[in-house]
Amino acid sequence: MGVSERLWSLGKLNHVAIAVPNLESATALYRDVMGAKVSEVTPLPEHGVYTVFVELGNTKLELLHPLGEKSPIEGFLKKNTAGGIHHICIEVDNITEAVKQLTSSEVRALNPEPKIGAHGKPVVFLHPKDCNGVLLELEEA
Amino acid sequence: MGVSERLWSLGKLNHVAIAVPNLESATALYRDVMGAKVSEVTPLPEHGVYTVFVELGNTKLELLHPLGEKSPIEGFLKKNTAGGIHHICIEVDNITEAVKQLTSSEVRALNPEPKIGAHGKPVVFLHPKDCNGVLLELEEA
Repeated sequence: MGVSERLWSLGKLNHVAIAVPNLESATALYRDVMGAKVSEVTPLPEHGVYTVFVELGNTKLELLHPLGEKSPIEGFLKKNTAGGIHHICIEVDNITEAVKQLTSSEVRALNPEPKIGAHGKPVVFLHPKDCNGVLLELEEA
Repeated sequence: MGVSERLWSLGKLNHVAIAVPNLESATALYRDVMGAKVSEVTPLPEHGVYTVFVELGNTKLELLHPLGEKSPIEGFLKKNTAGGIHHICIEVDNITEAVKQLTSSEVRALNPEPKIGAHGKPVVFLHPKDCNGVLLELEEA
């Protein structure tokens, strides 16, 4: 009890995720027109997306395109037919403590129990209504 | 003519701009709940916004709130009442060449002539319809 101790810290911006209706033309924009280094297309069937990473030096853009019938970005692309920023991902050093403190501060987690994310690390998504309309992913770095 | 030369490069992600309906509660989320270092509220009357910067180590979030009657984020907040990601800003080393090449590749600029942005540097906004639904700001670093 007494003085509250901070048991976790926020780290770097890991990525900005952009849902795109056409993965090839989106990749071409960043690679051919803007000259960025981009990854190969990586299918992640267990997450329902194809991904392409765009390197920006200090962080990356993650282009997402639906894979399979129940992709988590299907609904987003129906509403945003041109595509759009789907979420941002910030690193934390202790995701269990982060979720504990956030939920006690009335910031809801969409999955209170961390799950393994697209990079093989534990992640939690926070409710956009509690984060100024932003879907915020926390990833244990 | 002949081999085309690349006369500019894409650099770091300078910031992710988030439009927020309540600047105090948005700042409190990042400062008090998440423990991030945040700036004072800075009014930028010539840009029609109040800003607060959230430091993330490798980049920053820029919280935006309308200032004055003709704020450029007023319409966005009417559509997105909870707030949301308004744009991302990527650095370039030569904004004039960047705009020249982008427009010749049919990526439209909202202001083809660079203007002085919120950080006192030349910026150009690219048309979201040509960038996968993302409002993309280029800033000469």
